[in-house]
Amino acid sequence: MMIIDILNKKRLGKELSYQELDFFFNQYLEGKIADYQMSALLMAICIQGMSDEEIFSLTKIFIDSGDVLDFSDILGVKVDKHSTGGIGDKTTLIIAPIVASLGVPVVKMSGRGLGYTGGTIDKLESIPGFRVDLSDEEIIHQVKKIGVVVTGQTADLAPMDKKIYALRDVTATVSSIPLIASSIMSKKIASGADKILIDIKVGNGALLQTVEEAEKLSELMIKIGKVYHREVRTIISDMNAPLGYAVGNSLEVKEAISVLKGEEKDNSLVDLCVLLASEMVSMGKNISKEAATSLVLDSITNGCAYQKFLELVSAQGGDLSLLSCSSKKQVMRANCSGVITKIDALNVGKLSVSLGAGREEIEDKIDYGVGILFHKLVGEKVKKGDVLATFYVQKKVHLPKMEDIFSIDLKK
Amino acid sequence: MMIIDILNKKRLGKELSYQELDFFFNQYLEGKIADYQMSALLMAICIQGMSDEEIFSLTKIFIDSGDVLDFSDILGVKVDKHSTGGIGDKTTLIIAPIVASLGVPVVKMSGRGLGYTGGTIDKLESIPGFRVDLSDEEIIHQVKKIGVVVTGQTADLAPMDKKIYALRDVTATVSSIPLIASSIMSKKIASGADKILIDIKVGNGALLQTVEEAEKLSELMIKIGKVYHREVRTIISDMNAPLGYAVGNSLEVKEAISVLKGEEKDNSLVDLCVLLASEMVSMGKNISKEAATSLVLDSITNGCAYQKFLELVSAQGGDLSLLSCSSKKQVMRANCSGVITKIDALNVGKLSVSLGAGREEIEDKIDYGVGILFHKLVGEKVKKGDVLATFYVQKKVHLPKMEDIFSIDLKK
Repeated sequence: MMIIDILNKKRLGKELSYQELDFFFNQYLEGKIADYQMSALLMAICIQGMSDEEIFSLTKIFIDSGDVLDFSDILGVKVDKHSTGGIGDKTTLIIAPIVASLGVPVVKMSGRGLGYTGGTIDKLESIPGFRVDLSDEEIIHQVKKIGVVVTGQTADLAPMDKKIYALRDVTATVSSIPLIASSIMSKKIASGADKILIDIKVGNGALLQTVEEAEKLSELMIKIGKVYHREVRTIISDMNAPLGYAVGNSLEVKEAISVLKGEEKDNSLVDLCVLLASEMVSMGKNISKEAATSLVLDSITNGCAYQKFLELVSAQGGDLSLLSCSSKKQVMRANCSGVITKIDALNVGKLSVSLGAGREEIEDKIDYGVGILFHKLVGEKVKKGDVLATFYVQKKVHLPKMEDIFSIDLKK
Repeated sequence: MMIIDILNKKRLGKELSYQELDFFFNQYLEGKIADYQMSALLMAICIQGMSDEEIFSLTKIFIDSGDVLDFSDILGVKVDKHSTGGIGDKTTLIIAPIVASLGVPVVKMSGRGLGYTGGTIDKLESIPGFRVDLSDEEIIHQVKKIGVVVTGQTADLAPMDKKIYALRDVTATVSSIPLIASSIMSKKIASGADKILIDIKVGNGALLQTVEEAEKLSELMIKIGKVYHREVRTIISDMNAPLGYAVGNSLEVKEAISVLKGEEKDNSLVDLCVLLASEMVSMGKNISKEAATSLVLDSITNGCAYQKFLELVSAQGGDLSLLSCSSKKQVMRANCSGVITKIDALNVGKLSVSLGAGREEIEDKIDYGVGILFHKLVGEKVKKGDVLATFYVQKKVHLPKMEDIFSIDLKK
């Protein structure tokens, strides 16, 4: 009866106690509450919302379900960064070396891609030899030596969140701000970071569609951070268009290298990376954002950032000389002249998965060499016949219509 | 993706089309949509509600999932009666013979009890020999001969509703007025009735707790009836106290007999039976309610109603001389003097199930002889030490405290 009582309470929009949430979620983890009961609760939570107290309770329940890492052995303030997920988001590859090059230790545990968004671990694995399964000892040894590690999860962090997320994914209960906040924050707190920076994506290629939702999520995550004495900062960034020029694993590593070498300027990717890295350095060194930004820009200009990236790749066994993209290409040309007003992030994401750059199911294999390279971004002028994008493919594919990806304003 | 799109739509409170509902429910019936997805949709429906159009669609989908009976061979207007379920509700046993004795044919397909509410079929089976598994041919033969049949479902009526109801029961999605309306009406329409009378119970022993909810349900069922050209009338009746003196199968048959013999007067059970029977006769004969009430009262007084009951029992093989109650009894006495202000229907229902009169699980076996017989009803004066109720038991049980069942006002 307690299961039904709890479901009824949330169905009617009432607040659940810590004991009730703890009972329901832990019985579920133990297999004593069925998927169909949990999905009913998740749907009720999605529609009726959760109070701050309920969100704190759920976060604690998620954290307590698994290991909690302790990196207090590593000197310096460990700043973690998390993105809510986007198309073409290779920021971790760029900012981890930048921040480390400035003396702020970075222990970044990243994930694989699922659905339309890519994963940092997949991108790194496109570098032949690159190991993403470091042990706790290897992590500590490497971060002490070169100040940076980017690897897969070593421990069983918030396993309950993992189980719940899989169910949310198939029951349309993903886009609940309280559930997103508890999910992200439980993993970040369990992964042992001292301070946390969250990049909240908004737009048609993101979980959240409006800035208002992003602001609510931001507020909530900062509140959860306070409960655990973790400074949390957030950035709200646009995900209506893919981030940068490249979507696809090897292609994105190449773009990251070019940003680290200072070869790209004044585009949304570079701007976002400088912003994120500056926040992390500001948090890690306890200095102003302005001072941090100046250090970040210097690190790119003077080559230290790229140097740190090379050290990272080499420390984890990667061989950049073997990084390769598919040799089969197809192009998409502009069918009119004008100014690009939109590159549809969601459709680009779907397309990149269909090319083989991502996974629809967790068991799917990725082709690291495929992807999409844009030659023109939003705001740029194009003439009819210009190549807008190159598709790196396994075998000839039927490309979508230009209009499914690009919107071009003829009058501009 | 269509599953997720539909779930998202209802989560956001939007209206689903017939096609969308049809897809979701039929794919579920075929096992292509999982329980956890259906339960998420049901919870979203519970919270966000359904438009009239959605309710009509769902009713049609339920009806179309199974057989639709045709009793047009039987002369006269067939009026069906349905109760939303209560404790001690033996009205069908009483009104079916009354109505049939007045020349209105009654083909009543009843169900078994589950949870706290009893089922007419179980009550009839407490009469040794009584058959509740008549074939379609036997039904038509019997109703042509004696004008009345009370049996179990012969056909596969609205099997989708059955599957959905089982899921609703374990996911706290039972008390949704649109779902209750579609569930009841689909079965009533599929069972071939020309006109339908619904007894909507309200109170702590019922599905619905407030008269407002009951009025909403009533309005909805009348609307659904219009779509199918079926006259639907409703009665809203109290279910805060058990109906009548007896709860338990044999005990309830005995009470029904006593009402049919005209031995009981002026209590809530008799009043409700007269009201329900009058509505059915009014519908079946197309006469005023006043005229029908007068016929109904006559039928009890002149013995025709009881005579018809005896014909019904005999036609279906029952032997009333073998009807028996448990010989083991315990009594509950008043621990103070005053007026009874409440007999808690829900607690009585739970108690009767725990005695063995009902089922907690569908496979549970019933003991027909156990139950509770009240000696005093709400509104009656009692003195300290008076016997309030007799419990017919299998073996000595630990009775609840008097206060869990009875409320007594000392000042009155």
